[in-house]
Amino acid sequence: MKKVFVGIDLGGTNIKIGCFDSEIRLICKTSTPTEAEMGPKVVIERIAETIEKLLRDGGFSFKDVAAVGLGCPGPARYREGIIESATNLPKFKNTPIRQMLKDRMGKPVVFENDANAACWGEYVLGAGKGVKDMVFFTLGTGIGGGIINGGKLLTGCGDNAAELGHIIVYPDGRRCNCGQRGCAEAYASASNTAKRAVEAIEAGAESSLKKTLEEKGEITSRDVYEHLKAGDEFAKEITDGTAEALAILCVNMLHTTEPQRIVFAGGMIAAGDILLDRIKDYFNEQIWSLKKETVEICFATLGEDAGIIGAAALAKQIS
Amino acid sequence: MKKVFVGIDLGGTNIKIGCFDSEIRLICKTSTPTEAEMGPKVVIERIAETIEKLLRDGGFSFKDVAAVGLGCPGPARYREGIIESATNLPKFKNTPIRQMLKDRMGKPVVFENDANAACWGEYVLGAGKGVKDMVFFTLGTGIGGGIINGGKLLTGCGDNAAELGHIIVYPDGRRCNCGQRGCAEAYASASNTAKRAVEAIEAGAESSLKKTLEEKGEITSRDVYEHLKAGDEFAKEITDGTAEALAILCVNMLHTTEPQRIVFAGGMIAAGDILLDRIKDYFNEQIWSLKKETVEICFATLGEDAGIIGAAALAKQIS
Repeated sequence: MKKVFVGIDLGGTNIKIGCFDSEIRLICKTSTPTEAEMGPKVVIERIAETIEKLLRDGGFSFKDVAAVGLGCPGPARYREGIIESATNLPKFKNTPIRQMLKDRMGKPVVFENDANAACWGEYVLGAGKGVKDMVFFTLGTGIGGGIINGGKLLTGCGDNAAELGHIIVYPDGRRCNCGQRGCAEAYASASNTAKRAVEAIEAGAESSLKKTLEEKGEITSRDVYEHLKAGDEFAKEITDGTAEALAILCVNMLHTTEPQRIVFAGGMIAAGDILLDRIKDYFNEQIWSLKKETVEICFATLGEDAGIIGAAALAKQIS
Repeated sequence: MKKVFVGIDLGGTNIKIGCFDSEIRLICKTSTPTEAEMGPKVVIERIAETIEKLLRDGGFSFKDVAAVGLGCPGPARYREGIIESATNLPKFKNTPIRQMLKDRMGKPVVFENDANAACWGEYVLGAGKGVKDMVFFTLGTGIGGGIINGGKLLTGCGDNAAELGHIIVYPDGRRCNCGQRGCAEAYASASNTAKRAVEAIEAGAESSLKKTLEEKGEITSRDVYEHLKAGDEFAKEITDGTAEALAILCVNMLHTTEPQRIVFAGGMIAAGDILLDRIKDYFNEQIWSLKKETVEICFATLGEDAGIIGAAALAKQIS
């Protein structure tokens, strides 16, 4: 009786795993450190053991698993199931991760970009419900992206479409980890929003965040929007910088794949309506006047489980 | 015996019409002024009469026509067959142009964005042969775009995807006709390349083009690249500005739909390898280092017939 779908979100720091029923309702979930430095064999073994324990705790066993979905950051050769080289998984070189997991589990495994998996999760069960064309951004350490076109994930000629954080919004702008200059990610990810605040304060900007930086030695995006909510003008400027870069992304995606809905996810959206309203304001300021655009810009609804939900939903598709 | 496919490219100034056989080989073609100010009924009648004459001259008649493809600038409600309002067809308000043409011709009519039609032409019979994922830009008065994803035209939720000339490449930059600031079109279309040259010369730039402007009262993009080829440094700077904006478009499209090939068409490509090489140089300078990109950047091969060829090829699909 195969009725369980497993969704895995393999990150550089943690691995999230969830078991889902055939309606992709969560049965149970867990998280374990990746310890990527141990290399792929050890990590795969830990994933399998963690799934085994999770199933056992939920009253299931391996034989109940119909298929497994694995999400992992790009770039990778997803259709071939291979991690060629990943910034945050340095020992995974030319690793046939899908086959390794399939061999260990004895189950079909679907391998997908982590942001695409989260996008698919939001599309089938979250903020994307009811539309066929959607664009998804997840604002975390970086900015991941996903595109749904006519009800399908858009994957591109080499499986690395929708790396939307690396759209250049400010040519010759801030240097991004990817090597480019002026990527959206270099301005508007949660990490870079905080980083821009630190840099400006160190350069002499006045803000109530200055004390936070002195006390904690760092600033997080959460600090930025908490000080924004408390009325700090500088925190508002930093958030405006994030909102403006995201609004340009929205304009550019509208003119590219023309989604009906644009969904933002990730740590940064905890900033709430202040951020969302600023994105919409900038979008409305900047968008063309040739026709009235009706794209909806909104926040994701599945929270941090979107990745495992989406991976499980993709697993259901191949089973 | 239905064996002729008609392709129509309806522009603000001229209407191009071609008759094609079932392999989409050109039988005969013609061009006639649009005279858009006469309104849709008169224009439709002229299109039908022109097709009739063209068929007659080629030894055919209406009864030989299997289907008709009509390309027209956006934005429009293509799937519904309606021009809502078009900048260069001011009297075409809420015009059910597909139905009108269908009624007059008694044939199936497919209605598509003009750049999408040209993109489809290049995809099936020109520079896009052999790939399944392609991005197309046509550099004329404006910049039109088309996206082939998995062998299909990407049309978006409201039929106006791939308005790629209106991707913002320089926020707060030059004002575009569409109402936005910093669109690629405002820098890199043939018209705006020439316009940037005129503006800079009027502001005091030194160039051999100055004499051209004084003598002709205007500068065309052809003047710019002719002076570039003759060694004018200023003409090189202007062309570099065009190439850089186009290279940013290429980077952004690679991270969005990940094409295998990017094809440039339109009047501007007569500049030849000097332009193409500069686009590739800037692309290679700006693209990320996370993985080696293998996208091919090239020029279109069908020339100005791409629009009617593509429209006829789309007509073949519905017949």
